[in-house]
Amino acid sequence: MNADVLDELKWDAQGLVPAIAQDAASGEVLMVAWMNRDALRLTLEKQQAVYWSRSRGKLWFKGEESGHVQKLTEVRIDCDADVVLLQVEQIGGIACHTGRRRCFYRVFREGEWQTDEDVIKDPKEIYQ
Amino acid sequence: MNADVLDELKWDAQGLVPAIAQDAASGEVLMVAWMNRDALRLTLEKQQAVYWSRSRGKLWFKGEESGHVQKLTEVRIDCDADVVLLQVEQIGGIACHTGRRRCFYRVFREGEWQTDEDVIKDPKEIYQ
Repeated sequence: MNADVLDELKWDAQGLVPAIAQDAASGEVLMVAWMNRDALRLTLEKQQAVYWSRSRGKLWFKGEESGHVQKLTEVRIDCDADVVLLQVEQIGGIACHTGRRRCFYRVFREGEWQTDEDVIKDPKEIYQ
Repeated sequence: MNADVLDELKWDAQGLVPAIAQDAASGEVLMVAWMNRDALRLTLEKQQAVYWSRSRGKLWFKGEESGHVQKLTEVRIDCDADVVLLQVEQIGGIACHTGRRRCFYRVFREGEWQTDEDVIKDPKEIYQ
């Protein structure tokens, strides 16, 4: 991997950029996580999503526990080079740790945030 | 606006969350910007995108100069309540300040970031 590819990004003070995973088939935005240099490098090398877990302070190979791997079909950066956009094939059809298809399951409706997506699989069954 | 709606969000140390604008018709991710409490409140009230400009340190009424307003069709938050997802009608068909349809005009191909979207309108004509 040419270092220029990673240098092109404008990493924030913590060395991170947000990364959006979009379902390559449906166009749905599945989730947003964070990447550091290593995460983006590994994502491009492995052709599957690798994030940086801010809560755990380590690389997060998406699907390592759940099996819900995100295989890449495309990677883009924006005009400011501080956001990554992944097109992915979501293995298992579940991106969210709550067991839902996507993390954006709350919609603003009737003056409040309403959940409008069902849990497909109980997280207790996903993370054993 | 009920304050609970804004309290639900997990604002970062700077009081911000990233906000994704997705084209409601095509599903394309157009851009990512940031929102503080006021920006989200105004977005929900006006039913059009209002961001917080980190570079200018003030509210950014998207389209105020360019006319490229983003009218809302839906607003979502994710499982961690720290990312906002807008479905928008992009007035003028140009979301990016470079005069392109979307900000994600660079794709990773052949080991480098390649621009694969044309400028629709010269920024000099947009920002006069």
